[in-house]
Amino acid sequence: MSNVTLPTTPESILPLVLKAMSRTPDARLRELMASLTSHLHAFILETKVTEEEFERAVKFLIDIGQATGEKTNEVILAADLLGVSSLVAVLNNPANHNDAHAQAEAASHAALLGPFWRANAPFCEAGANIARGNTQGMPLDVRGVVYDKHGKPLANATVDVWHASPIGLYENQDDAQENMNLRGRFKTDAHGAYFFKTVRPAGYPVPTNGPCGDLLRAQLRHPNRPAHLHFMVSTPGHKVLITQVFADGDDNLTSDPVFGVTAPLVGDFQEHTANGKTHATLTHDFHLTEGEMTFPHPPIP
Amino acid sequence: MSNVTLPTTPESILPLVLKAMSRTPDARLRELMASLTSHLHAFILETKVTEEEFERAVKFLIDIGQATGEKTNEVILAADLLGVSSLVAVLNNPANHNDAHAQAEAASHAALLGPFWRANAPFCEAGANIARGNTQGMPLDVRGVVYDKHGKPLANATVDVWHASPIGLYENQDDAQENMNLRGRFKTDAHGAYFFKTVRPAGYPVPTNGPCGDLLRAQLRHPNRPAHLHFMVSTPGHKVLITQVFADGDDNLTSDPVFGVTAPLVGDFQEHTANGKTHATLTHDFHLTEGEMTFPHPPIP
Repeated sequence: MSNVTLPTTPESILPLVLKAMSRTPDARLRELMASLTSHLHAFILETKVTEEEFERAVKFLIDIGQATGEKTNEVILAADLLGVSSLVAVLNNPANHNDAHAQAEAASHAALLGPFWRANAPFCEAGANIARGNTQGMPLDVRGVVYDKHGKPLANATVDVWHASPIGLYENQDDAQENMNLRGRFKTDAHGAYFFKTVRPAGYPVPTNGPCGDLLRAQLRHPNRPAHLHFMVSTPGHKVLITQVFADGDDNLTSDPVFGVTAPLVGDFQEHTANGKTHATLTHDFHLTEGEMTFPHPPIP
Repeated sequence: MSNVTLPTTPESILPLVLKAMSRTPDARLRELMASLTSHLHAFILETKVTEEEFERAVKFLIDIGQATGEKTNEVILAADLLGVSSLVAVLNNPANHNDAHAQAEAASHAALLGPFWRANAPFCEAGANIARGNTQGMPLDVRGVVYDKHGKPLANATVDVWHASPIGLYENQDDAQENMNLRGRFKTDAHGAYFFKTVRPAGYPVPTNGPCGDLLRAQLRHPNRPAHLHFMVSTPGHKVLITQVFADGDDNLTSDPVFGVTAPLVGDFQEHTANGKTHATLTHDFHLTEGEMTFPHPPIP
């Protein structure tokens, strides 16, 4: 037995791990694991992680896995709080990042799906109000056009919208709301236009009663997402656009705990007062790119 | 609202995350999270992780957390299989890595605690046999001396030993073995010497029925650890030495799935045949360093 292949220093372990993984038949898995492992070892060497810190990290990973269930996904939340979910969303949905002038004609920015999408929101007529029952709040009219990559309007595309109530709760978090409240799917008309009525959503905190809440508190970070509407826009032959449109002027726009706000995702909300009553309008267009129409797995039933 | 603080490119997200974490009062937590987050973003950018791959990674993390319980710790196993546990062990227990000549006088190498240590193995008289009941196997005599950092023998130090049976099972994995079989604590004599009798252990596979087993199979890696004895050597005023001594000549010595074998941990096993019967001897000394005597948490009750 030669000592050559046995490690004696911290730095000599990584090459052995990479060698052990080098026979992985799936080239992509091999690439991913080699890079991940290299960065993990570099992190540990760089910061000289102690045995106690390693024990705490293991405990955190066990805790977020075990806290994940039907109502909450602490693993995704942890990825959100490190900016990882947003990074993956932006990376895989390239808009024309570097040319602000061309932005209008470029693909729309994507954003996190989030944990509250439901796959089967009801189809509604154009102009219908998705604030069902007696949902109170400032009326909001939302309209816009769905375009293809050449700037041509897309008729019969599906605009799936969902958002939190004016007190910051989704219908399935709030017994006071009707089933499917503030959710609906709309078809664009012959000119690619969609239109619906609702009420202005409020921002809300990410869940703070689990291990991720402990992390936020230890980092003195607030948990409040800026108010936003979720959209999922789809039509055959195009990549499904999953995005969010944020309320301009929200105090938390530049301190979103999950880093979901990119500049083009800030919506142009206008408020109008007539006869002592205020209502708001939002006009927001979407630009799809060609590709396969693949829907995500619903995070909740 | 200025666009300056909102990201528009994948690379522009990390600085925002680091800024959000920069107010963390605990300087060490701030350092660890900044480095970890930077490496995670670098990994994702380097390999261009897709949305589907991200979903799979999230599922793996949920699965290893939820598979962890009283009998198995898949999170620690995952860290083991990436060489992370060994890296932390070697990093925090520096021996005289770079000078082979001085090795004998340097601190002993540490190795993983592993999942099978129990805190309360029985204290035994010097020379006692820890192969209890009718455990079959090649007899093995183990002896050595425990030294302090100056090479002075340490009397009355505790040598806690535990190992798998000749068929590769720990007593608490195997109904056929007596409680505390192949476990015992010995006190060194006035000359720092310890001595016990047992049977030669066999190697064994890490658990392969969970998510980590799927990873090993996808990487075409075998799960078999080389045969070894676990030691925990302690005496007040010295850091607790947790280590393993491996069987020289084991086929898996250079392909340990958890990368626990460093060159100085390969033991000098000798086999002797007399009257048609073979027995083995192992002589192995331990060198402690000064420090606080802190014991780990037992991974199992």
